[in-house]
Amino acid sequence: MPPFTKGSSRVPTPAYHQSTIIPGRSSCQQRRVVSTAPIQHIQDLSGPEQRLLNKLYEGLIGGQRASLAESITLVETQHPRKKELAQVLLQRVLAYRKEQESRNGGKPVAFRVGLSGPPGAGKSSFIEVVGKMLTARGHKVSVLAVDPSSCTTGGSLLGDKTRMTELSRDMNAFIRPSPASGTLGGVTRTTNEAVVLCEGAGYDIVLVETVGVGQSEFAVADMVDMFVLLIPPAGGDELQGIKRGIIERADLVVVTKSDGDLVVPARRIQTEYTSALKLLRRQSKSWNPKVVRASSYTSEGIPEVWAKMESYRDAMLASGELQGRRRAQQKVWMWSLIQENVLQHFQNHPSVRDSLPHLEERVTKGAISPGLAADLLLKAFSSS
Amino acid sequence: MPPFTKGSSRVPTPAYHQSTIIPGRSSCQQRRVVSTAPIQHIQDLSGPEQRLLNKLYEGLIGGQRASLAESITLVETQHPRKKELAQVLLQRVLAYRKEQESRNGGKPVAFRVGLSGPPGAGKSSFIEVVGKMLTARGHKVSVLAVDPSSCTTGGSLLGDKTRMTELSRDMNAFIRPSPASGTLGGVTRTTNEAVVLCEGAGYDIVLVETVGVGQSEFAVADMVDMFVLLIPPAGGDELQGIKRGIIERADLVVVTKSDGDLVVPARRIQTEYTSALKLLRRQSKSWNPKVVRASSYTSEGIPEVWAKMESYRDAMLASGELQGRRRAQQKVWMWSLIQENVLQHFQNHPSVRDSLPHLEERVTKGAISPGLAADLLLKAFSSS
Repeated sequence: MPPFTKGSSRVPTPAYHQSTIIPGRSSCQQRRVVSTAPIQHIQDLSGPEQRLLNKLYEGLIGGQRASLAESITLVETQHPRKKELAQVLLQRVLAYRKEQESRNGGKPVAFRVGLSGPPGAGKSSFIEVVGKMLTARGHKVSVLAVDPSSCTTGGSLLGDKTRMTELSRDMNAFIRPSPASGTLGGVTRTTNEAVVLCEGAGYDIVLVETVGVGQSEFAVADMVDMFVLLIPPAGGDELQGIKRGIIERADLVVVTKSDGDLVVPARRIQTEYTSALKLLRRQSKSWNPKVVRASSYTSEGIPEVWAKMESYRDAMLASGELQGRRRAQQKVWMWSLIQENVLQHFQNHPSVRDSLPHLEERVTKGAISPGLAADLLLKAFSSS
Repeated sequence: MPPFTKGSSRVPTPAYHQSTIIPGRSSCQQRRVVSTAPIQHIQDLSGPEQRLLNKLYEGLIGGQRASLAESITLVETQHPRKKELAQVLLQRVLAYRKEQESRNGGKPVAFRVGLSGPPGAGKSSFIEVVGKMLTARGHKVSVLAVDPSSCTTGGSLLGDKTRMTELSRDMNAFIRPSPASGTLGGVTRTTNEAVVLCEGAGYDIVLVETVGVGQSEFAVADMVDMFVLLIPPAGGDELQGIKRGIIERADLVVVTKSDGDLVVPARRIQTEYTSALKLLRRQSKSWNPKVVRASSYTSEGIPEVWAKMESYRDAMLASGELQGRRRAQQKVWMWSLIQENVLQHFQNHPSVRDSLPHLEERVTKGAISPGLAADLLLKAFSSS
């Protein structure tokens, strides 16, 4: 296992800035015979298991909120057998959704919108107001949350029903807090799968909310059709809470709380972000990021925000970019899970665990080169 | 090998946006007895090998350009035994540099500056003018280039001596084009090691130049003390060549070609970037990114650019941030190499190679979930 193979097309590029690695595929894969049927490794289902899955599936596609909630709980489980059952359920829902999509001329059955912003941007109020407007217009709206800190704080504040009192009582809305799993990878995998379940249950708008904890905003931007950044009408230090790089991922920036005395600062922030976005590279050929103002308190600007979101969706669907982005996201996500797992495997290797602390310390002190340390660790990993 | 272990502190975070993964260290590493001496795996050196290394080392620390060039060539080699020799040489130079640093009160022996910018920003002219000014002031300047495209184009344009005619004839300057290795990982590893060799040879200023190819700008930003972005005084489409996210990595933005008719547009660009940078999150507590104008043609602004670079260095050294950044870079670099190699190992695994094309296709089409595909591939990887 030489560390670098000259000119090999299969060597993956380090994820210097990308969301995750998508290693280049080899052009000489000759033995492509083995067809791994997706769930063939799952043992025959017992009678009760079969009945449970049937009940969940029927309830879910029937649009029952209790079945949807129970299905998401199954997807979140850490229990090995239940995890397998969750995958069987997910396969059935994926097939159902695919069928619906082909009836729909290949168009996605739902619009996935990511929402982020620094603390104090008013995310919950915004989602409450937008969500209620959408259900009043006949949409079914689900709200999911990604908060990798929830495992340490002992529970998620995000997607907390008490903060969206009206929406949580709305029969056409479904609100789910962040799963309390140990890693961002775990949380985002679960959320990705919960999105599929919500779509199967007939929710045509899926909102994924996150805070700027760790890399969660980038994880959310990587799983939605549109990424919306909420900014409060404040300057200076407050805006320091916005993660570097995330502004460039925004398809739409909403300056919130644009009412009363805050209209003037909100306008100023709007102008500043409009100029700043012009200097940043465009993500899409069919859409230029916009900056709008809105107030969740007076509802001023809220219908316009949704109109902008709809024009984004229409433009991206018409150009095929939305569909392309989804395909790319699936692949990125698969490689991200593989990467996380394989590196974990590496770190748990006994020889690596023996040498790592010492070598890492020497590297940090500049006593040996990072290249040599990596070589030594890789040698330890591959030799036993 | 379960894909996600709940609450495990050893599970690495996917590199959603970070340069590279630095997995969390376990707190329960009990068997930390084995001390892997850095180069103990290298067989005894033969007489000629010993003499070669001695000659290179003595020449290098004596400041001979030919020895430095030959040492970098050794570091760039793909030959297994020569690679080992390169590591022995590097160890000696690292030890020498460390000794110098401790004599210097722990201060780094050189200032490492990364330079980037879109095509047409005038990078070569800028380096020529700044480099000559610095050698005239008694500095020794080396210029290294990172261009991962050089392997496909059959040679690097960057760091091309013909584009820096005067500097290349300067006895206090050393110019080295990009190595023609196959991967960005390979090129950046080599460049990192070349930086160490230049410092050993007494160069107190190391400039690392790159173009915006792939992720090379981020790789360079991750290996220097200061990252400088050069921007031409042009608007609109030209600026689209600037990679997303890279503006936020810049410690200094230089608007180039600020002379004659271009002074007015250069001023406008300067104002725009100054406002834009205010909206971006600060990277450092001791430095606010600045935007300056300069002309390589009239030399106007060039001494001021260098003065800004010196105040950056002084502020970062005084706060200890520069030293901290270097320590973090070393660790990031080690993990980046490990990640690249381990994923390559994964992809070359026969069972993975058999299943990958089929599974990847199904994931892209939305027929199976990325999570299930990752599980199946990881199962194939770990079961044989």
